[in-house]
Amino acid sequence: MSRIYDRVALIGLGLIASSMAHAMRAGGLAGEIVGTARSAETRAVARELGFCDRVTETAAEAVRDADLVVLATPVGVMGAVAAEIAPHLKPGAVVTDVGSVKRAVIDAVGPELPDTVTFIPGHPLAGTEHSGPRSGFATLFRKRWTILLPPDDADETDVARLRALWEGMGAYVDYMAPDHHDLVLAVTSHAPHLIAYTMVGVADDLRRVTDSEVIKYSAAGFRDFTRIAASDPTMWRDVFLSNREATLEILGRFTEELFALQRAIRTGDGDHLHAYFTRTRAIRRGIIEAGQDTEAPDFGRGSAS
Amino acid sequence: MSRIYDRVALIGLGLIASSMAHAMRAGGLAGEIVGTARSAETRAVARELGFCDRVTETAAEAVRDADLVVLATPVGVMGAVAAEIAPHLKPGAVVTDVGSVKRAVIDAVGPELPDTVTFIPGHPLAGTEHSGPRSGFATLFRKRWTILLPPDDADETDVARLRALWEGMGAYVDYMAPDHHDLVLAVTSHAPHLIAYTMVGVADDLRRVTDSEVIKYSAAGFRDFTRIAASDPTMWRDVFLSNREATLEILGRFTEELFALQRAIRTGDGDHLHAYFTRTRAIRRGIIEAGQDTEAPDFGRGSAS
Repeated sequence: MSRIYDRVALIGLGLIASSMAHAMRAGGLAGEIVGTARSAETRAVARELGFCDRVTETAAEAVRDADLVVLATPVGVMGAVAAEIAPHLKPGAVVTDVGSVKRAVIDAVGPELPDTVTFIPGHPLAGTEHSGPRSGFATLFRKRWTILLPPDDADETDVARLRALWEGMGAYVDYMAPDHHDLVLAVTSHAPHLIAYTMVGVADDLRRVTDSEVIKYSAAGFRDFTRIAASDPTMWRDVFLSNREATLEILGRFTEELFALQRAIRTGDGDHLHAYFTRTRAIRRGIIEAGQDTEAPDFGRGSAS
Repeated sequence: MSRIYDRVALIGLGLIASSMAHAMRAGGLAGEIVGTARSAETRAVARELGFCDRVTETAAEAVRDADLVVLATPVGVMGAVAAEIAPHLKPGAVVTDVGSVKRAVIDAVGPELPDTVTFIPGHPLAGTEHSGPRSGFATLFRKRWTILLPPDDADETDVARLRALWEGMGAYVDYMAPDHHDLVLAVTSHAPHLIAYTMVGVADDLRRVTDSEVIKYSAAGFRDFTRIAASDPTMWRDVFLSNREATLEILGRFTEELFALQRAIRTGDGDHLHAYFTRTRAIRRGIIEAGQDTEAPDFGRGSAS
């Protein structure tokens, strides 16, 4: 690998940004990595772990002379961060972000940035249930998709460089339009997360079924929901509030289908249930063939009866 | 390990029974393992793989002189199987099952069996997304819970032997009453499975979001639902129809909570969302501490943004 940017500034130092720092360093992709975070504790941890070359007190300092600026905060504050850094951006710099929703980020960030920089929104589809600066690791993006959303007038060289950075960190890269991105992610991520949060909340509420039983017997299916529902609360609050329309649309369809299945259970319509459950197997096979999951039978994760 | 039963008969040779055969053989727990299945194809596969010492054409033949008979068919046919084998059971034999619901199985099987045998219902909380006689493996039950539901008048020696068999296959064993079992499983397994099936069905219906996109970007959360929703359709149809009341009760609570969260999204109530998402993290920690999942950050399974 060779250097792609002379200086990269990371604003926000959670799971994604710290993983980017580890991955850029492992690949020699950046001359200097500068990081900053709003919280003094996060900055202290970042200094202790040393995944950035420099950690600055303010975002304004961090972006100075940076060729690439990465907004890696919760999406709800990205507009404010953009306004804060705008006067300090180097002309010709590229600004990107790693937010899970794109229309709201583009609407909030775009107008704050000067014409002398190019904003190329991005979204790495990678993560774990852990958050914060200690949770990052260099291989997080490997064989995972990163979606870039270059505006029509973006310079091709700028887009190619940002793509090369993500590929250098091991990611597959794809391009998408903002509204389509938000709908696809509502299906593949946002609705499933809200549903998982809900189911875990219901289990928590049921006092007849003691906590220890829910936990002991979680391998029967519930466990997979708890992993999803352990993700960062602030990040997810912002995701749902900023991708409101698409998320609610998918949840509406979900509720409709769920009612139809509940009715089939209530009326004893076994054929309806069987046909529905058969159909969903095909999607699973597609995911395994696409290399986005493994078929390994258990390794501690079997979905069980 | 030493021999616990002289002859064990397995009725139905899917994932659970074939895994039991592999595990019993690995541990030397049974003198002879006899298996049977309704489908000629399943019997042929079982003969080819050789995990049973003998494969018989009928259940009546299989149970002859067996000390332990394991009903491992879908729960919807267990009553009929019990009626079929009843005249052929050895006096003093123990009959058990591995069904995912217990009240309905007890009501269907119990009355069919002669007084000369003891029925001790069971439920191993283990499985994978795969089904059929080729999917079994000896370590499926290792460090997973098996719930036994001995009737009040069961002989202690009979219960202890069955427990020893499950422990010999690597399982943890717990006792529970039938109705409580069905409620706990509705929370930890049945409702999560129906919800996962529903979400995968919704994604399949959405023609604007092409199949390939749903599959490509599934690592963002959806993937975990598809694994659950790939389980055996016949087994799950029977589970929902036989644990109707508890499943519908939990789904009713789930829908209530989901509506409250949808409303919070619609009205922009970020505090409600944040508080809800924070609460669900504690359950996740409990599961990891209980050894029922691993904290490993990814191994191809990160729940992502």
